[in-house]
Amino acid sequence: MAHLRIALAQVNSTVGDLDGNADTVVEWARRAAEAGAHLVAFPEMMLTGYPVEDLALRASFVEASQRALAGLARRLADEGLGDLPVVTGYLDRRTGGPVRAGQPAGAPLNAAAWLHGGEVLVRSAKHHLPNYGVFDEYRIFVQGDRLPVVRVNGVDVATVICEDLWQDGGPVSAAGEAGAGLLLAVNASPYERDKDDVRLDLCARRAREAGCALAYVNMVGGQDELVFDGDSVVVDPDGTPLARAPQFVEHLLVTDLALPAAPATVPDDAAIDRHVLSAAPLPDRPAEPPTLAEPLDDLAEIYAALVLGTRDYVRKNGFRSVVLGLSGGIDSALVATIASDAIGPENVHVVLLPSRHSSEGSVVDAEDLVKRQGVNARTIPIADMVEAFERQLDLHGLAAENLQARVRANIWMALSNEHGHLVLTGGNKSELATGYSTLYGDSAGGFAPIKDVFKLTVWELARWRNAQAGADLPFLHPFPHEPIPEVIIVKEPSAELRPGQRDRDTLPEYTVLDPVLADYVERDMGRDALVAAGHDAALVERTIRLVDLAEYKRRQYPPGPKITPKNFGRDRRLPITNRWREPSTRS
Amino acid sequence: MAHLRIALAQVNSTVGDLDGNADTVVEWARRAAEAGAHLVAFPEMMLTGYPVEDLALRASFVEASQRALAGLARRLADEGLGDLPVVTGYLDRRTGGPVRAGQPAGAPLNAAAWLHGGEVLVRSAKHHLPNYGVFDEYRIFVQGDRLPVVRVNGVDVATVICEDLWQDGGPVSAAGEAGAGLLLAVNASPYERDKDDVRLDLCARRAREAGCALAYVNMVGGQDELVFDGDSVVVDPDGTPLARAPQFVEHLLVTDLALPAAPATVPDDAAIDRHVLSAAPLPDRPAEPPTLAEPLDDLAEIYAALVLGTRDYVRKNGFRSVVLGLSGGIDSALVATIASDAIGPENVHVVLLPSRHSSEGSVVDAEDLVKRQGVNARTIPIADMVEAFERQLDLHGLAAENLQARVRANIWMALSNEHGHLVLTGGNKSELATGYSTLYGDSAGGFAPIKDVFKLTVWELARWRNAQAGADLPFLHPFPHEPIPEVIIVKEPSAELRPGQRDRDTLPEYTVLDPVLADYVERDMGRDALVAAGHDAALVERTIRLVDLAEYKRRQYPPGPKITPKNFGRDRRLPITNRWREPSTRS
Repeated sequence: MAHLRIALAQVNSTVGDLDGNADTVVEWARRAAEAGAHLVAFPEMMLTGYPVEDLALRASFVEASQRALAGLARRLADEGLGDLPVVTGYLDRRTGGPVRAGQPAGAPLNAAAWLHGGEVLVRSAKHHLPNYGVFDEYRIFVQGDRLPVVRVNGVDVATVICEDLWQDGGPVSAAGEAGAGLLLAVNASPYERDKDDVRLDLCARRAREAGCALAYVNMVGGQDELVFDGDSVVVDPDGTPLARAPQFVEHLLVTDLALPAAPATVPDDAAIDRHVLSAAPLPDRPAEPPTLAEPLDDLAEIYAALVLGTRDYVRKNGFRSVVLGLSGGIDSALVATIASDAIGPENVHVVLLPSRHSSEGSVVDAEDLVKRQGVNARTIPIADMVEAFERQLDLHGLAAENLQARVRANIWMALSNEHGHLVLTGGNKSELATGYSTLYGDSAGGFAPIKDVFKLTVWELARWRNAQAGADLPFLHPFPHEPIPEVIIVKEPSAELRPGQRDRDTLPEYTVLDPVLADYVERDMGRDALVAAGHDAALVERTIRLVDLAEYKRRQYPPGPKITPKNFGRDRRLPITNRWREPSTRS
Repeated sequence: MAHLRIALAQVNSTVGDLDGNADTVVEWARRAAEAGAHLVAFPEMMLTGYPVEDLALRASFVEASQRALAGLARRLADEGLGDLPVVTGYLDRRTGGPVRAGQPAGAPLNAAAWLHGGEVLVRSAKHHLPNYGVFDEYRIFVQGDRLPVVRVNGVDVATVICEDLWQDGGPVSAAGEAGAGLLLAVNASPYERDKDDVRLDLCARRAREAGCALAYVNMVGGQDELVFDGDSVVVDPDGTPLARAPQFVEHLLVTDLALPAAPATVPDDAAIDRHVLSAAPLPDRPAEPPTLAEPLDDLAEIYAALVLGTRDYVRKNGFRSVVLGLSGGIDSALVATIASDAIGPENVHVVLLPSRHSSEGSVVDAEDLVKRQGVNARTIPIADMVEAFERQLDLHGLAAENLQARVRANIWMALSNEHGHLVLTGGNKSELATGYSTLYGDSAGGFAPIKDVFKLTVWELARWRNAQAGADLPFLHPFPHEPIPEVIIVKEPSAELRPGQRDRDTLPEYTVLDPVLADYVERDMGRDALVAAGHDAALVERTIRLVDLAEYKRRQYPPGPKITPKNFGRDRRLPITNRWREPSTRS
């Protein structure tokens, strides 16, 4: 067996920030070198960030990525790190090859490269392009077909990219047949609830298939609608975890491995690019104790993802502060707490906007939260503004309710424009799925931290967060006491837009609504399948009607300004968080 | 040569309205039979409408489409149309076949079927799945691999689906090798500016490749963000157009063809499903004169697409009326005119919402348009409402400007909620691309008719529409005089949100801005490429800065409520216009 110390750099990349991301690679490569690593690996699309969406179709961006990669290789050497092999993801393009109608312009590649000695040693690209869930890679990439195998200290290391690991056959099988001693997978794999276990099982299975150890490095950080959790891992050839990085934080996972030395002769395969950096195996030696982080429990994971997603959306878009309405209800209370944890309570601005229908309890409870967290607060009764509209318009029912929500949104937006705060929105997944919110009212805002969180989970997260008071967790503000008043968690939910209004007058109880919503909205189960799964038939039909017809929003009013004829020219789909700018002078 | 009279049913399908779409098939099949056709063909995904987006992933919807197809076959026979072969698109699923991670759930197929004698004779599915521009078919379909060849009156007719025609090789080549006498392509191909010529050239090329006549039937109608223009066509084996349907209207294109009779023996190919409906060729006979519609000119095409897109969005979503703000400027004037053409001026409600910065000319010009078109109008000065906010908030510059736009949006939305009108939005592509609009203000609304139209084209369309006064075109309201006051077309553009404001104080002149926007936003050209294409370097840099940083909206404030962590469960991407409902009792 041969000794290899590998370092997996689980870092936070920003879309479009080629210079900043290159700085991160240099900084963490230095840490790896200082830790005595023989190889350091960075995530998929490290240099460009992920997902780049239609930026991949802009030639100038592809070329900037190619230049950044070459520049990074030189800089690593200039800074004395040229001897350390560095594997990193970046954006490249295919030259030649088949062209077909509708192929992504410029044939962009989701690529990875080995850098060594100031040069780009070998380039490869992702074979399997995911196009499901949050992924749209068929739209923006063409497929790669090469497998790089690089010999480092006598060990053959094969590299694959993310989805290549999830698909049967393909480069993982090829790596096994190529006799690789280590399979290195670079990833930008977003957090999903319960996905960590799926990923670990997958790594174990692929290691057994390839018959070698597998090192999996993942991105960490929030990027627009996605949150990457890290959770990088190393498993041995029988699938046993040898090392695991903590979730939701940057981490250098350094692991000593005893790996089979490459044989004297290797099978010949035209699809494999073989390179030898150092042929002589290092003698096996006692391993340093590896990091084996425990994964977070379910609620901690979700809360950490929300905090990281919020923090990075604020930070990566150049904001320093947020503003949100605090109603005295659970949703806005949880969002305020997430914001305090993400950017510190001193950067959180809340506004209490009571109407004639707001209960006194709501105002008092909101004020209690303000005191507990020390956020900036201001109270503005909205009666004058609402009445100015009502003098001109004769509004009833839903129209009158919505007006109040829209006056509040106007105030958030005015404060945002005047002071540069980002508006956070408080809507949860249960109410948004059922249309129980006001378009351009409570649904307005720049970032909606709990939009993908069902109401039952909102309550669970609030209780979980209160239970952490005094705990020392990297993603929490150190409130010494419970940040959310208990009364806010236990009170009956109400929108308070008309006298005596309660959620349960309009919606089924959340304890039965949320499970149906999960099966219908997330799992695409139809009516009969929902009933067969044990949901009450009347509840199923009511929920389907709410979601499809959206009594409060979609039926009365279809969604916003995105709907338009778009046949006249192509529109770009671009990341919102994007630091890349076209060069302002010719280069 | 054998005689075949074919009918191409260029009809308007609605997503999810399986019953209504089946009714349409029966009605137009009857018309085809009455016209003596030997074969009638309907568009791609006729039964379900197109695009169905993630509805394809719901098993109950796939099963409903399968049942609707079988029911349609029976019903055609029951109504005495069983002898007429009917080709139609629908949604099916693959049984068996390979399964991979991330494959669309249930393996949905974009399918076509031949119906005859009360039965489904043969089914096939699209081979090539477009995943560029407005298409996301890799997300929701798996690929087909069969080519049906059906003998009708002694002629072998092969059917392919839309994108199969756009890709080299594949089923078109196979149809040629199979010795087909007619290649029939069923399509849902959205209108794009200048695409009609591209499509005709494509049909001609593929006919030559396959060595046989080609019949191309396309959908017509608006569906959410897409507009299908029809423009169905029949070309002979050397690519010469034999018949062409008018654009943007439903039409039955009946064409007499002299086609080669199928040979006694045909090549054997396991991927081809051959069926014989009627082996004996009909003797060739003199053809009836075919329809050869002239395509519309560029501006007429665009205007027709906007009218049809608006009419169908209103109608298919169950609205009967619209409301919009009329500022006295060109954008809202054009949108009001499109609305009058689409649904009649009696269903158009405009509100004039002057502020302290509105010029007297604006109000007078808007009132003149109201008189010319006879739309419903109401004037509500917004000063009281704006001042009610300003008493509580100390707003300056952009924040004060945006407040006025948001107060106006509140009024549109209140009128929408109170009276059930759909809000139309007036923003054009130039101002939206550069961020020269207010989030939740003038950009708010349910449908934005000119969002994909650059400002220069807005002016061209207004002049074109005025020039049609008194003309008899199927997509125009018969105004006897010019519907848009000339002064609105010639006046200097201004948002009128502060004293003396003009667009050109913030934006480059539209004559130079629009061409740069087209190259940057639609063609993804980078800075150097834009300069190399002849655009002024300073203008290019200014435009890129406007678009990327979006001085008015995106930089001050990132886009709306869509941004949220979405890692916790999958969300559906569903059509907004969708008539399909889960069955409300077990079937």
